[in-house]
Amino acid sequence: MLLELDLESERPLYQQLVNAIIKGIATGELQPGESLPSVRMLAQDLGINMHTVNKAYHLLKADGFLHIHRQKGVTIASVLPSADRAFHEKTRADLEPIIAEAVSRGMAEDNFLALCRSLFAEMRAKRTAKK
Amino acid sequence: MLLELDLESERPLYQQLVNAIIKGIATGELQPGESLPSVRMLAQDLGINMHTVNKAYHLLKADGFLHIHRQKGVTIASVLPSADRAFHEKTRADLEPIIAEAVSRGMAEDNFLALCRSLFAEMRAKRTAKK
Repeated sequence: MLLELDLESERPLYQQLVNAIIKGIATGELQPGESLPSVRMLAQDLGINMHTVNKAYHLLKADGFLHIHRQKGVTIASVLPSADRAFHEKTRADLEPIIAEAVSRGMAEDNFLALCRSLFAEMRAKRTAKK
Repeated sequence: MLLELDLESERPLYQQLVNAIIKGIATGELQPGESLPSVRMLAQDLGINMHTVNKAYHLLKADGFLHIHRQKGVTIASVLPSADRAFHEKTRADLEPIIAEAVSRGMAEDNFLALCRSLFAEMRAKRTAKK
């Protein structure tokens, strides 16, 4: 899997790494149970600090996306976390400022929903291409 | 307008302030042309650093939501910025990780769209109540 980080982005690197791995799972590039590089290797490959990789891995572990075994190493969870109540609440909180800005800029609700649909379609397309 | 900041949130305070003001515009609590408190007053009211308020105001100014006059003070722009190409691209980039996580948790697209619709409806409801 190709992980691309934007070193000029305002988004912290550990967050970009978390997002890239979750996107990999969503598109099927990373399969449940699949092994990921060790903290040391990934940090070396990406040219970033080990603490950054470690922070990303531990956040993903806390959310149930990764398993971290002292000996077997890092793997994508074989059973992925569900869209539970806490996730719904977090998603609502994350969407609120985005939708507030869309409304304040006069963006039509239908255009916003179309943008969401196109992102779902993109991920489905990658998933299908992978099969 | 009541501005509520969450001092325990991971989201930086200046970002919370930006979001709260944009939400105020979206819901009609803050009207185009309306005056906002000075940096000093708002910092005092909220019990936060002047630099934090200053940063939020300048980001909002850069995006076209605020005017900052040396004498007249801070006002909501009388003509709000539009949902231009740059905004579409930013929104797509902001939505991508949220939708990736929804997909990887097996959330149905329709449920996600329903959540978006409910947020649009909430803002419309406040706007109508205001009139």
